[in-house]
Amino acid sequence: MSRVVVTGATGFIGRGTLSPLLAAGLEVHAVTSRTPPADAPAGVHWHRADLLDPPVADALMAAIAPSHILHLAWYAQPGAFWTSPENLRWVEASLRLLRSFADNGGQRATIGGTCAEYEWGHHTVCREATTPCLPATLYGTSKHALRLIAERYCERVGVSLAWGRIFFVFGPGEDPARLGGSVARALALGAEAPCSHGEQLRDFLYSEDLAEAFVALLCSDVAGAVNLASGQPTRIRDLVQALGNAAGRPELVRLGARPAGALEPVELIADVTRLHDEVGWRPSRTLDQRAADTIAWWRDQLTDAVPPPGNA
Amino acid sequence: MSRVVVTGATGFIGRGTLSPLLAAGLEVHAVTSRTPPADAPAGVHWHRADLLDPPVADALMAAIAPSHILHLAWYAQPGAFWTSPENLRWVEASLRLLRSFADNGGQRATIGGTCAEYEWGHHTVCREATTPCLPATLYGTSKHALRLIAERYCERVGVSLAWGRIFFVFGPGEDPARLGGSVARALALGAEAPCSHGEQLRDFLYSEDLAEAFVALLCSDVAGAVNLASGQPTRIRDLVQALGNAAGRPELVRLGARPAGALEPVELIADVTRLHDEVGWRPSRTLDQRAADTIAWWRDQLTDAVPPPGNA
Repeated sequence: MSRVVVTGATGFIGRGTLSPLLAAGLEVHAVTSRTPPADAPAGVHWHRADLLDPPVADALMAAIAPSHILHLAWYAQPGAFWTSPENLRWVEASLRLLRSFADNGGQRATIGGTCAEYEWGHHTVCREATTPCLPATLYGTSKHALRLIAERYCERVGVSLAWGRIFFVFGPGEDPARLGGSVARALALGAEAPCSHGEQLRDFLYSEDLAEAFVALLCSDVAGAVNLASGQPTRIRDLVQALGNAAGRPELVRLGARPAGALEPVELIADVTRLHDEVGWRPSRTLDQRAADTIAWWRDQLTDAVPPPGNA
Repeated sequence: MSRVVVTGATGFIGRGTLSPLLAAGLEVHAVTSRTPPADAPAGVHWHRADLLDPPVADALMAAIAPSHILHLAWYAQPGAFWTSPENLRWVEASLRLLRSFADNGGQRATIGGTCAEYEWGHHTVCREATTPCLPATLYGTSKHALRLIAERYCERVGVSLAWGRIFFVFGPGEDPARLGGSVARALALGAEAPCSHGEQLRDFLYSEDLAEAFVALLCSDVAGAVNLASGQPTRIRDLVQALGNAAGRPELVRLGARPAGALEPVELIADVTRLHDEVGWRPSRTLDQRAADTIAWWRDQLTDAVPPPGNA
């Protein structure tokens, strides 16, 4: 049986990969530096480990000897992750992990990349083969540099490597310090949800759909960079209004109440030809359905909560 | 007083940096995984340390708290270094070192890069600002990726960074598994020196001149990538014939006796405008003078040696 290690297994995207990996017939080894969640699917082998601690990756890979790895762990503190020196530590940890994986007989790796690897213009359609990788941030640069090395290294040692580029994600459990999490939580609480003007065109994918796309990519034999996105260019205002509608309180969405980021591109969308035609994956549900799923999850979480004072 | 850490301080290039660093008035801390040489200049503080061992860089930087670093250590096994997984370990070690350097108050870093970062065509004049970095090897890719991250990181933490790109080097103590070392050693022994056709155009710099150029770069305030080369395009045949002439035995040079590498570019030379105009450095001696210095060094080393049987 194929044996997969998932890193970042309790993260916003990682936690959604466990059920699809089990469904694909893999023996699943989930790695996290946190406490494994009580509601995780049965049958997952949990390993509590800090991959930033140098000897840890070697010990883990030697003990598990996985055939597959899905490496999603990274520093993800909202806002701070763009420029944090922690990005260097994750490049170091990722190279160590990949070496140990190959040294212990690993055959197929999939690593989480980002649309921030691409050069961002005002109007960017990101295509894997032709859009230049000229990242503007330390985060994007670190991911880009890791991919360059990982691709050459995997070619050298005979590991098949896919690199899944994440675009914009929303869904259950999103950090309220991020746009989607802040809006969905506020709406579920019946509170106002301040946003920027929301005209920016993006590609949004529901977190569990992204997790499913990662698993489809890992289980395919597609190599190289693949955009993991919905393929549906969507304005930020359309996402937040879908959340407002799902909550039954569209009037709580306050477009223009916050400034837009100065460096934000007007359009940043994904060409998903590789994902559709080579991996053979596309999301099965609409943005409106996923907005409803998100609000339902938050309402479930917040059953006992009340709106914070002054925020209603 | 400014305090500099030199890594790879006993290596082919590193050992030549110690005297110029002392002459520049720096307090010199030399790091090596080997035994410090008996003939090293007086006044150097030696630290025996393996930078591939994760906690070592932190301990070293905390103990020394250097203002400057000249990072030259890397995996350099002739032939093997192009594709070895050791390149990944040196990326990891270099990122750790750079983080520790910055965390302990470091201000000015210079790191050894390579002409193998550039895209090699049949006829390539490497210019820092315009020649694309599309390295063909794991070595070149690892250096390129390290530079991308190091530049963004240093910008982020306020460290001034220069990146010195090494081209082709010859001189005293060159490994006899490399072209220059094999030819110079054979000639000093009075033995035949088999070479390829030697028509390839390169930029050769004497190892101690390269060391001096690194020190000039470190002590300047020039930032970013700088080609460290002679600026004199030279055919390989002209270098080996200069060595033959210096040895007084030009007839021992056997051009065409070995195949040329299949992937070797016909021309691979350096634009040295930045080095001349911004750093203000150029070599003070000619290729013929440096060929004579190289042969003299080998004769000195080999005083008691005899040619190996069958090689005369």
